[in-house]
Amino acid sequence: MTAPFRTIGQPVGKIDGVELVTGRARYTADLQFPGSLQAVARRAGVAAGLLRHLNVEEARRSPGVVLVLTPADLPGPNLIGILPPFDQPLLAGPEIRHEGDSLALVVAETQEEAEAAASRIVAEIEPFIPLLDPEEALHADARKIHANGNLTFAKQLLKGDVEAGFAQAEVIVEDTYRTSVQDHAYLEPEAVLAVPESDGRLTVYASCQSPFHLRGHIAVNTGLPASRVKVVQPFVGGSFGGKDDAVTEMGSLAGAAALKLGRPVRIVHSRRDSFLGSHARHAAIIHLKTGAMRDGTIIARQAEILLDGGAYASESPFVVMKALIHVAGPYKIPHLRVDCRAVYTNKRQAGAMRGFGVPQVTFASESQIDALARKLGLDRWELRRHNALTVGEANATSQVFHESVGLVQTLERVKEEGDWPACLKRAHAGDNPRFKRGVGLAAMMQGISNGAEGIDVVGASVQVSQDGSVLVGLGLTELGQGSRTAMAQIAAEILGVSLEKISVRQVDTDTVHDSGPTVASRTTTVGGKAVWMAAQTVRTSLLEMAGLMLKAPAEAIELGLDHAYLRENPQAQIPLAQVATAAYWTGFPLMNLAFSRAPDAQYDHETHQGQIYIAYNYGTHLMEVEVDTWTGKVRVLRHLASHDVGKAINPLGVEGQVEGASLMGLGFAHLEEVLEENGKIRNANFADYQIPSFAERLPTRFLPVEEATSNGPFGAKGIGEPPLAGAAAAFTNAVSDALGISFRRLPITPQRILEALEG
Amino acid sequence: MTAPFRTIGQPVGKIDGVELVTGRARYTADLQFPGSLQAVARRAGVAAGLLRHLNVEEARRSPGVVLVLTPADLPGPNLIGILPPFDQPLLAGPEIRHEGDSLALVVAETQEEAEAAASRIVAEIEPFIPLLDPEEALHADARKIHANGNLTFAKQLLKGDVEAGFAQAEVIVEDTYRTSVQDHAYLEPEAVLAVPESDGRLTVYASCQSPFHLRGHIAVNTGLPASRVKVVQPFVGGSFGGKDDAVTEMGSLAGAAALKLGRPVRIVHSRRDSFLGSHARHAAIIHLKTGAMRDGTIIARQAEILLDGGAYASESPFVVMKALIHVAGPYKIPHLRVDCRAVYTNKRQAGAMRGFGVPQVTFASESQIDALARKLGLDRWELRRHNALTVGEANATSQVFHESVGLVQTLERVKEEGDWPACLKRAHAGDNPRFKRGVGLAAMMQGISNGAEGIDVVGASVQVSQDGSVLVGLGLTELGQGSRTAMAQIAAEILGVSLEKISVRQVDTDTVHDSGPTVASRTTTVGGKAVWMAAQTVRTSLLEMAGLMLKAPAEAIELGLDHAYLRENPQAQIPLAQVATAAYWTGFPLMNLAFSRAPDAQYDHETHQGQIYIAYNYGTHLMEVEVDTWTGKVRVLRHLASHDVGKAINPLGVEGQVEGASLMGLGFAHLEEVLEENGKIRNANFADYQIPSFAERLPTRFLPVEEATSNGPFGAKGIGEPPLAGAAAAFTNAVSDALGISFRRLPITPQRILEALEG
Repeated sequence: MTAPFRTIGQPVGKIDGVELVTGRARYTADLQFPGSLQAVARRAGVAAGLLRHLNVEEARRSPGVVLVLTPADLPGPNLIGILPPFDQPLLAGPEIRHEGDSLALVVAETQEEAEAAASRIVAEIEPFIPLLDPEEALHADARKIHANGNLTFAKQLLKGDVEAGFAQAEVIVEDTYRTSVQDHAYLEPEAVLAVPESDGRLTVYASCQSPFHLRGHIAVNTGLPASRVKVVQPFVGGSFGGKDDAVTEMGSLAGAAALKLGRPVRIVHSRRDSFLGSHARHAAIIHLKTGAMRDGTIIARQAEILLDGGAYASESPFVVMKALIHVAGPYKIPHLRVDCRAVYTNKRQAGAMRGFGVPQVTFASESQIDALARKLGLDRWELRRHNALTVGEANATSQVFHESVGLVQTLERVKEEGDWPACLKRAHAGDNPRFKRGVGLAAMMQGISNGAEGIDVVGASVQVSQDGSVLVGLGLTELGQGSRTAMAQIAAEILGVSLEKISVRQVDTDTVHDSGPTVASRTTTVGGKAVWMAAQTVRTSLLEMAGLMLKAPAEAIELGLDHAYLRENPQAQIPLAQVATAAYWTGFPLMNLAFSRAPDAQYDHETHQGQIYIAYNYGTHLMEVEVDTWTGKVRVLRHLASHDVGKAINPLGVEGQVEGASLMGLGFAHLEEVLEENGKIRNANFADYQIPSFAERLPTRFLPVEEATSNGPFGAKGIGEPPLAGAAAAFTNAVSDALGISFRRLPITPQRILEALEG
Repeated sequence: MTAPFRTIGQPVGKIDGVELVTGRARYTADLQFPGSLQAVARRAGVAAGLLRHLNVEEARRSPGVVLVLTPADLPGPNLIGILPPFDQPLLAGPEIRHEGDSLALVVAETQEEAEAAASRIVAEIEPFIPLLDPEEALHADARKIHANGNLTFAKQLLKGDVEAGFAQAEVIVEDTYRTSVQDHAYLEPEAVLAVPESDGRLTVYASCQSPFHLRGHIAVNTGLPASRVKVVQPFVGGSFGGKDDAVTEMGSLAGAAALKLGRPVRIVHSRRDSFLGSHARHAAIIHLKTGAMRDGTIIARQAEILLDGGAYASESPFVVMKALIHVAGPYKIPHLRVDCRAVYTNKRQAGAMRGFGVPQVTFASESQIDALARKLGLDRWELRRHNALTVGEANATSQVFHESVGLVQTLERVKEEGDWPACLKRAHAGDNPRFKRGVGLAAMMQGISNGAEGIDVVGASVQVSQDGSVLVGLGLTELGQGSRTAMAQIAAEILGVSLEKISVRQVDTDTVHDSGPTVASRTTTVGGKAVWMAAQTVRTSLLEMAGLMLKAPAEAIELGLDHAYLRENPQAQIPLAQVATAAYWTGFPLMNLAFSRAPDAQYDHETHQGQIYIAYNYGTHLMEVEVDTWTGKVRVLRHLASHDVGKAINPLGVEGQVEGASLMGLGFAHLEEVLEENGKIRNANFADYQIPSFAERLPTRFLPVEEATSNGPFGAKGIGEPPLAGAAAAFTNAVSDALGISFRRLPITPQRILEALEG
């Protein structure tokens, strides 16, 4: 297993690609168990108020209804959340905190019957004036949405002496930036199916991304020991951070109902349910001030970030930390002060979403870098290059990396491939009165893995059968991102097995160590490391056995494609199936469960100075756009995305992630905005909420940079999230460049473009 | 975790007892998947012949039929077996070797349609005269049932100089003993359900005892890599060694059909199918000769054992070895020669069944010990005691144990509780012309675990959740013997967790190391050791974490019932749930996969001298019977069973095993016999094949002896099989004692008793 690699770095199609494109893949809603019931939640329908009375009698008598679950029927604490003390009830009441609060769950023979009955539940609610503005919610005399007040979480980052920095600065730019609520908009809405087993256990199939978190909450809320709850993840049609809280609520309710009834209970969200009953991306208000010297050296930055957390805490505490740490961008800035807060409002809660605070602050930061360049009259690329973090430099948390800081390489690649600055001239060359062209640049970084957000452990298992085929298990989930394929490649490389002989099974909480949530672009890095570790032990068994068979020490053996051979004499080889069979019968272990633990974050909690992340992904995006000034429509003509991925396990998979995340970034910057009126969502469907369609597909070209990290398998770093922030910021800067207008609020919809052109 | 134990040694009810007695437990035939098809095999119906033509056209056109599978449709080698070269076809032809050979599999929408169609398959078979007598089958000119002849397997045991021994002997007894075919007669017949999954894998639910063996054969015979096949064991209603070959055939066929059709396919044996299509216990012919001195010292023994293996090898090779090793009984005999052979005949094949050759040879040996006592005029108990193996003595394979040889203790306990020899006088005191009483004694030993029969490895997993509950996984199966409860107790003891918080999950081949078959009374010993090992690692995590929390070194911590405490100050305690949660968030591993490997057997393969088993279970049975000389009916008045179990993990479970195995021994000795006529089974149902019913329930009293072995968890040795041989031999000797007639053929049915009384 020495470079050049056989499988690592080779572009391979998804190992489950055929199932996915042929429609054979079964999702949670597709699973069938005889006797299954369908359940639907009755939602509050008002943003704030006090539930005076809930009349479920008519619903109970509705055709097909077998159970109406109310808070009194729940054996557990009726609370879920990410961090204790948990603040989100499964079934709300008496306090109503947002429109989507579930009040009761109707379980019936069919979906239609459940829906009809849910509409017959009468909720008498004394309405409150909803608190919808996050700044208002922070007023001292604002109504308290939760008993402990409306400030969900607040953190500060302090580096150097920001006052001194600004005093020293020759130029200062300052502005306020705003972003909107973005929906996850996965194709498959949330779904769970709880099946009571005949051995007293409960199996919950769930379209989820944090099966262990789900298991724990189901256990507590159903009164079962966690060891009697098994969460299985079928195919999942996207998650992006979304299938956590909502699925926890659904799984706990379905579990409680299933145990009560002794029958399988399924809850499948409609698109409207998904909009109302799951969390979204935090809308942010970012006040940003940057001080620099005339030569472009950035010397100080100050930021105040306010995140609208909605009705419940969800992941707000961690999003606060991530925004806090990333608002400095990928630059060496000696003096920093950042204050970041999340606040409760009477809206759908905000939580984890691909990017996790980074897209919001990257948009603000990169907009301001352009503003600074304009003010200084400097080239935008040169300004970024001049301040770019490199190996050995301290970042915002004063963490110094001695490897794997590929930002400058991404800047260089984009400059070269993008023909900067000549491309700028070409874009602005014509003088078409209707179609305006512009080029935007954005540089960014994103911490990989949990880092300061919590313990970072992952379990994986590798099992070699006597026929030399391999089964890989992992505690992190495949959400469509291609992780099963990457894990298969890692195992294939280490064990010398062809990819066709490797299966990566769907997650089942019984079988691996609690691995925490599938978040933070950590699957390839920390998850891949766990697979790497698990495979090593089995590899040792195979080498030892082959050594016995070839009468050589294990060190003299190498594993080729489905065979073992003598390194000095590759003709001396044995099929791997024979080695595996002999190893079994000789008593060598052929299965291993590994436990991978990333180095702990070590930092000062008051200032956020210290070792926060095990590695960062760095990237530079260039986007060229053409804006139709008559309609406000924007066409992306060119998109270069360069990222330092450490090592691309599967270049095809990395490309897919870059394309997908970039497109989501386009949605964030250009199209997507959950609209509410008096606390009620106006566009809870895909007709009114616009996501990029195939027509908007970006002409993304990925430019890989590979600066390996020793914390990832074969040097790999995650890539699932970073391009989103890069593409969004580059898009914003490109439109601003095209029109000569600074946009400080996302999304820059055609309508807002027209308004800006008029204004 | 020091004695006295909290859970180990406590009599506890089965952890799945409620599910079992309430009927909630779901067996393979109970599982429902929408779209499931039913399949039925068309059997040969003749014992021997050549299949000239198989016409399946009419069956294909039968209502509801979706597929008729013939050998040409099978993608694999169409062969299964225990040891290579495999000799049993899934679908037979052209050679027909026994009545139950499957020729084709009919798959239809319903069971009735499948059966109707199967009966419409026309098989043109040129019949042969079946070879039914094992001695005839060994004739040089006998027709060869398999290409390599009719001798399946032959082994020899040589110790000392048997000729010299007999020359020295002052008394010699010699006789031939015969046993009959016993059916496993489990309440749940064999069943499988193969489900094609949407990720390209195949799940096979099976009432089986060797899930990994099954997986391997399904993979080969369907053409899938083994890593794409998952075998799951639902509740199983008994196996006793039986649910191996037949289930392998059924699983492979159902798997092939399911993959072809993309729908779940189920095969559930009727009772008749179970008799015709599974294996049974070997009928044996045992020629035995024993030489002794006048004082009773046994000096030499010679045995020739012929096992009727039926149509296929199955486990015959290993049963040969086990019979070979055990025919000397639990005695120190310096000179031994044993020849043991298995032979092919045109009958249902014989294979593994509880006892595995030991009941047959124990019956012969213990009958001859009584014969010797009579000839020498010695007390039967004294003769056994005089020759009994003790610590430090060489057994039949010259293996010397320095611990855990509790035979003498079992003899003493039975003598004392049975009031021997006074009980003999009392039994013979009356002189009722119709009802005759007698007392039988039998001593025995049985090797625990695989020993010389193959590699002895087991995988287990232990996972502690953040709520302090525990999930245990094991690669060996719960067949009704109570192993899940014993495993739960072992984990509970080590982790300080109450039994209610422990789940032991059903076996799933994805999740643990290939653990070989659930045979040889090895579950508690080797499997328990694996659970013990897996739990130790997690225990270390809990101790370390509790140490950090209680500010003490881990060595100062002890685990109490669901809490950790300072050994020196038990008031200083923390609930285990808090310790587990903290351990997770601190990064201590809370799950471990252990791989337990018993010490390898080391012996001379020509003479079977050496270290064969890791331990033996020793036992003494006493049975008092009353024979109705008018009807031949036998009533068991008293049954004492003493066994050295090393350590009873769950005394209630051990009692259950002793009772169950003894009752099966009564069936073997008294009632059960599969009858055939011209190679066709005459009594393939429970009306004609008689097993002990509740009316025949033995008044078993178990007398435990606990001589710990260091090879088992807490010293435990297996108990699943040994009492069968002991009870059968004691019964035989009791009837012989009552009537003054030596019975040399089992079963001693009422009819045979009457014949003997007349003869």
